[in-house]
Amino acid sequence: MRRWNGWGDDQFSLELPEEGQAFLGRRIGRATPLQDVTLKQVCSGLPVSRLPSDPAVADQIDTGNETRVRHARGQSLVDWLALHSGDIGTFPDGVAFPASNSDVRALLRYVHDNDLHLIAYGGGTSVAGHINPVDQGKPILTVSLAKMNRLLDLDRESQLATFGAGTPGPLVEAQLRAHGYTLGHFPQSFELSTIGGWVASRSSGQQSLRYGRIEQLFAGGRIETLQGTLDIPTIPASSAGPDIREMILGSEGRLGLITEVQARVSRLPEQENFYVVFFPSWDLARTAARQLAQDRIQLSMLRLSNAIETETQLALAGHPGLIGMLEKILSLRGARDGKCMMTFGVTGSISQCRAALKEARQVCSTHQGVYTGTRLGVKWAEKRFTMPYLREALWHMGYAVDTLETATNWDNVDNLLNKIEDNLRNGLASQNENTHVFTHLSHFYGQGCSIYTTYVFRVADSYPETLARWQHLKDTTSELIVRNRGTISHQHGVGKDHAPYLPLEKGELGMRAIRALTTSFDPDSRLNPKTLLD
Amino acid sequence: MRRWNGWGDDQFSLELPEEGQAFLGRRIGRATPLQDVTLKQVCSGLPVSRLPSDPAVADQIDTGNETRVRHARGQSLVDWLALHSGDIGTFPDGVAFPASNSDVRALLRYVHDNDLHLIAYGGGTSVAGHINPVDQGKPILTVSLAKMNRLLDLDRESQLATFGAGTPGPLVEAQLRAHGYTLGHFPQSFELSTIGGWVASRSSGQQSLRYGRIEQLFAGGRIETLQGTLDIPTIPASSAGPDIREMILGSEGRLGLITEVQARVSRLPEQENFYVVFFPSWDLARTAARQLAQDRIQLSMLRLSNAIETETQLALAGHPGLIGMLEKILSLRGARDGKCMMTFGVTGSISQCRAALKEARQVCSTHQGVYTGTRLGVKWAEKRFTMPYLREALWHMGYAVDTLETATNWDNVDNLLNKIEDNLRNGLASQNENTHVFTHLSHFYGQGCSIYTTYVFRVADSYPETLARWQHLKDTTSELIVRNRGTISHQHGVGKDHAPYLPLEKGELGMRAIRALTTSFDPDSRLNPKTLLD
Repeated sequence: MRRWNGWGDDQFSLELPEEGQAFLGRRIGRATPLQDVTLKQVCSGLPVSRLPSDPAVADQIDTGNETRVRHARGQSLVDWLALHSGDIGTFPDGVAFPASNSDVRALLRYVHDNDLHLIAYGGGTSVAGHINPVDQGKPILTVSLAKMNRLLDLDRESQLATFGAGTPGPLVEAQLRAHGYTLGHFPQSFELSTIGGWVASRSSGQQSLRYGRIEQLFAGGRIETLQGTLDIPTIPASSAGPDIREMILGSEGRLGLITEVQARVSRLPEQENFYVVFFPSWDLARTAARQLAQDRIQLSMLRLSNAIETETQLALAGHPGLIGMLEKILSLRGARDGKCMMTFGVTGSISQCRAALKEARQVCSTHQGVYTGTRLGVKWAEKRFTMPYLREALWHMGYAVDTLETATNWDNVDNLLNKIEDNLRNGLASQNENTHVFTHLSHFYGQGCSIYTTYVFRVADSYPETLARWQHLKDTTSELIVRNRGTISHQHGVGKDHAPYLPLEKGELGMRAIRALTTSFDPDSRLNPKTLLD
Repeated sequence: MRRWNGWGDDQFSLELPEEGQAFLGRRIGRATPLQDVTLKQVCSGLPVSRLPSDPAVADQIDTGNETRVRHARGQSLVDWLALHSGDIGTFPDGVAFPASNSDVRALLRYVHDNDLHLIAYGGGTSVAGHINPVDQGKPILTVSLAKMNRLLDLDRESQLATFGAGTPGPLVEAQLRAHGYTLGHFPQSFELSTIGGWVASRSSGQQSLRYGRIEQLFAGGRIETLQGTLDIPTIPASSAGPDIREMILGSEGRLGLITEVQARVSRLPEQENFYVVFFPSWDLARTAARQLAQDRIQLSMLRLSNAIETETQLALAGHPGLIGMLEKILSLRGARDGKCMMTFGVTGSISQCRAALKEARQVCSTHQGVYTGTRLGVKWAEKRFTMPYLREALWHMGYAVDTLETATNWDNVDNLLNKIEDNLRNGLASQNENTHVFTHLSHFYGQGCSIYTTYVFRVADSYPETLARWQHLKDTTSELIVRNRGTISHQHGVGKDHAPYLPLEKGELGMRAIRALTTSFDPDSRLNPKTLLD
């Protein structure tokens, strides 16, 4: 069953190998875990639901305490601390599980007529507070489209698939694969996040180099709003005025509930492989990665770890004997301390893969990259969705883990990356605490790339003190990002946590444009209030 | 000098070879041209300018009659008929030529304070009535950014170029080429249209398969609005809420004046070639083209002419001896009557080009394509921007030429294409007039493609009767397009001519979203009123 207070299925867990524990101990010291509250304890303390009864929607809505707890929070570190401490604050007053568009329309009428607030739950994987209820004195209904999880239509000729918006990643891919197709959208949250949530939050997947971000995959669909149904037709491309799709993408539930997504799919590729190359230095590695993107080498994914992430990954992998051997070989070929690991994927027809691999190897070798073939690439592919489970393991050892991500232009990548890492690394110095910080670049464009930074710190003696540690790191780094030409989010969205920084990025008139849309579709701010903007 | 009543420079003209004349004569009969009005005649009949004088903007504004006439109309067939007949209707009361952002801001204040209307002229190449003044009882100021035509900045590392929005195609490319870069945006209007106009109208260029549509090239920039300056930062990609860039793209001057465009540029490619392949039938040709797109073969351009366009192009090319020889060779290899011509471009590094050409030839040969190498491709590249000049030649022979374009999903391409062609071909039957109609597909996506149809008909005995012929063809076909899952425009925009059909495409709530933006930025509808929407 899905963990009520953490990531994924509770039958699956990861353990940190001894070498990894020793590594973290050396970096930030051994730690003492905080005490976890139980689900039962939380459920016993819930306020009574304020939802009015209405026979038109009664059979869709579950007001049971456990359901309300399980839909109260997302997956941010704040959410994590709330769920583990039991200090959760506001709960939804009930959770609706509509099974059709007309169910959703009935819910919207119910919300409108009874002066309620509504939260679109998606897959509940938000790491920016999108789905967290905020108490504004009105009853709150959270809506999960978990029952709307089917492939409704597949147009093979136009390569368009229609899905219920609540379809989670594995069901998207399984239903398509049965017909020989793939969407190719693989965010790290793939196991739990939904196709509607990807659209609402402008998600990006690990293989966006081939398949595109969700902006490129979202062809049209249906959105149920308080003003009626918005059907966006599927047109391959158009110059007929501003693109309505683009107003829904990133709307984070403020305009309406996305109920159906028509997505651009691809035939399953003939071949797919992932390769790993080590570079002697960050400068060489980053230059090679930039060239791969700017030269339009047909890769399907690309990820570049900086030296500390490379070191951390090798340490946390376990297998000290094998890793030692690898490091010896790399050392002989010039990649020693400060080496950086690049992983890239090649996907397509056999001849396309052959050509792309050849071109990619050429670029890498120009920059002194040491090619190691597919062996570590296979490992990456096996573990591509498991990183969140590691957070679980670290938590039980007394470590808190969070990530921050942004994107910026190439001319600013090093500047911003260093500022982010320095700020996190030194952020707890006044408490004599170290933070272990490492970064990779994971989405590449001609213009720039994303920067994805992970930081690990020891929990404090109490939950409030631990939260304060996090809050300080998060606030100062978020401010730093938007003041240094980064976006407040490349792939996680705005939610409530990033909302204070959005005006700095979009400017007064940019915010005016977004507000014009939310005000027009939801004048009373009933839908996901406080998410995206006030 | 630029033609005041037609396309391009008046020192350059094309002649239709004798074989072409004979071909059209057989298809729709010989024709008698209508009498053209002169520039002098038009200038002598202009109403006096209603613009109030204001020293703050006086030196930017030209109220001379010739300047007003030269900025009164675009390049649609209606515009053509107006300018050749002299029945032009409303003129701008003056034309402003700002040289800086502060000039533009001064103009906007002037417009606001004096209750004026403002039209953004772009390059004046609209074929949908974008820039045509509409008399609503208010003085009309047309604004040309022709003086804002410089490359302002080039960031080589991030491959971003900043241009004054009035920079026309040739100056975009020349200024970039001097540094070894290209934008790669080549609409047929390239010689005259501007980078700001491309953004405002969501333009697409002939090599969009490599470089993308203007949506992909527009990274950010500056828009002067009646509410202040909107600066859109350049971020490679973001999930921070709806994308403001996408609200400006296709806004057609309704939100403000785009004054600076930051565009994603590429290094000049090592190699570029264009190739021609003939297919025995439309079915084979269309299937091959679809496969090229869906298999992600790295082409830079792709164009597929249907059988009538292929026949027309070969007839109009002249050189009957050479063409005869070509047709004999094609016939021997299976491409006879009903054959369809595909032109594709391959651009990139030498190794990328080699791989892509090999893959493309393989796909074509699977579908019985007869590869003819680069010879006809070179011809295509030479003439890629000259088609509008042919309209000039045909006009003087008594033929009116217009084009209609849309895009739709693959499953609907044949249905829509046939409906469009049939409607145009039979549209003048009640007058016993034939229309010569032919089509190519010119922009390809996994999901579908654009459909670009040209139609030629004889002018009637008078201008009003000729206009009535056109109006009937245009209205019925536009209606047909939006009622059959086509977009009202894939690359020409909405303007005033397509505005009546936009609500059918976008739906009531789609229009509500667009109107929320225009109302918020321009509550009194001063900017390009009647363009895009009422």
